[in-house]
Amino acid sequence: MSLFITFEGGEGCGKSTQSKALYRYLKKLGLGCVLTHEPGGTRSGDKITRLLKWSEEENISPLAELLLFNASRSILIDNVIKPALQNGNIVICDRYTDSTLAYQGYGRGLELDTVKCINSLASGGLVPDLTIWLDMDDKAALLRKGKLPPDRFESENNGFHQRVRDGFGVIAAAEPNRFLKLDASLSQSELTKCIRQRVNALLKLPQ
Amino acid sequence: MSLFITFEGGEGCGKSTQSKALYRYLKKLGLGCVLTHEPGGTRSGDKITRLLKWSEEENISPLAELLLFNASRSILIDNVIKPALQNGNIVICDRYTDSTLAYQGYGRGLELDTVKCINSLASGGLVPDLTIWLDMDDKAALLRKGKLPPDRFESENNGFHQRVRDGFGVIAAAEPNRFLKLDASLSQSELTKCIRQRVNALLKLPQ
Repeated sequence: MSLFITFEGGEGCGKSTQSKALYRYLKKLGLGCVLTHEPGGTRSGDKITRLLKWSEEENISPLAELLLFNASRSILIDNVIKPALQNGNIVICDRYTDSTLAYQGYGRGLELDTVKCINSLASGGLVPDLTIWLDMDDKAALLRKGKLPPDRFESENNGFHQRVRDGFGVIAAAEPNRFLKLDASLSQSELTKCIRQRVNALLKLPQ
Repeated sequence: MSLFITFEGGEGCGKSTQSKALYRYLKKLGLGCVLTHEPGGTRSGDKITRLLKWSEEENISPLAELLLFNASRSILIDNVIKPALQNGNIVICDRYTDSTLAYQGYGRGLELDTVKCINSLASGGLVPDLTIWLDMDDKAALLRKGKLPPDRFESENNGFHQRVRDGFGVIAAAEPNRFLKLDASLSQSELTKCIRQRVNALLKLPQ
């Protein structure tokens, strides 16, 4: 059965680790599974991502960010996500529309209705069956990211990251059935266990 | 006085030649003038343009095109057009929102209201004072372009280019005061003369 699962949360909360762990688990079960990520996930999308994360050449406004993230999303959906779902696969995506609403809407202060409208247009209304939100205090999360130089988002101040976190909170509260909120400060194995339980239930597999 | 002038039309209609001629003319008059173009016109925008025109890596849908053109536009407006207008310059732009409506709307078949909505969002409602449409039979225009390999738009079939041309016709008819429609098969010097007459009138210069 096809299933669309997304991971959300702030920088360094463990999305990448947990999405890979879930992917390996489902593959071991013999299920068709595709792991991808936003922004990027396609060659065109990766070029857009480099522009978004590392551009120092000129001012890229929150609105331009919104359009670029959604262009990248539209290309990812057309070329990766939709074909995989149509072939009966489980698709796991590290970040999706909720990130855009949290970062460009709540974080950058763009009108929420504008963000929702462009998100919906670019995604063609494709909503995840399950969204796993790894919630974490942002100072702790940024420390976790380690010593690589920070990109345009990681280098934002604490106020920005707190607004993003609060934004995820509002979004998740509005759709409790879609969201699984987890405390990202739990151990990796505890998180993995919680995620597997929920996914097993969706797939009607024994717990 | 600041003034925003755009050039529109199909491939190879002479927009680039005429916009440069107008720029040189206004500079000779001692007026502050900035010449730019879409898509691109900024370093980030030029990267987006390369993606739009030459991507063969994956399917880029009309919707993704719409978002990318408008992201590039938003960056151009913020970094080039608005600052130049605010400093009292005349800004000449080779292609602008009307191209997106003609190409992605009428040409590619996206819903016109969607294209208008995203155009308006990205441009922040900035509408040209004058739009010069160099109208030309598209077969003749494509021949004019010469022997360079065609990009994703130039290599579209005749039906596409005819729809784009018809689209420009509808758009121009709806805003007769903004549009100056010229027959692009006229000689370069005749076109230059017509354009100068109209711009002189706008600037209240002697004809």
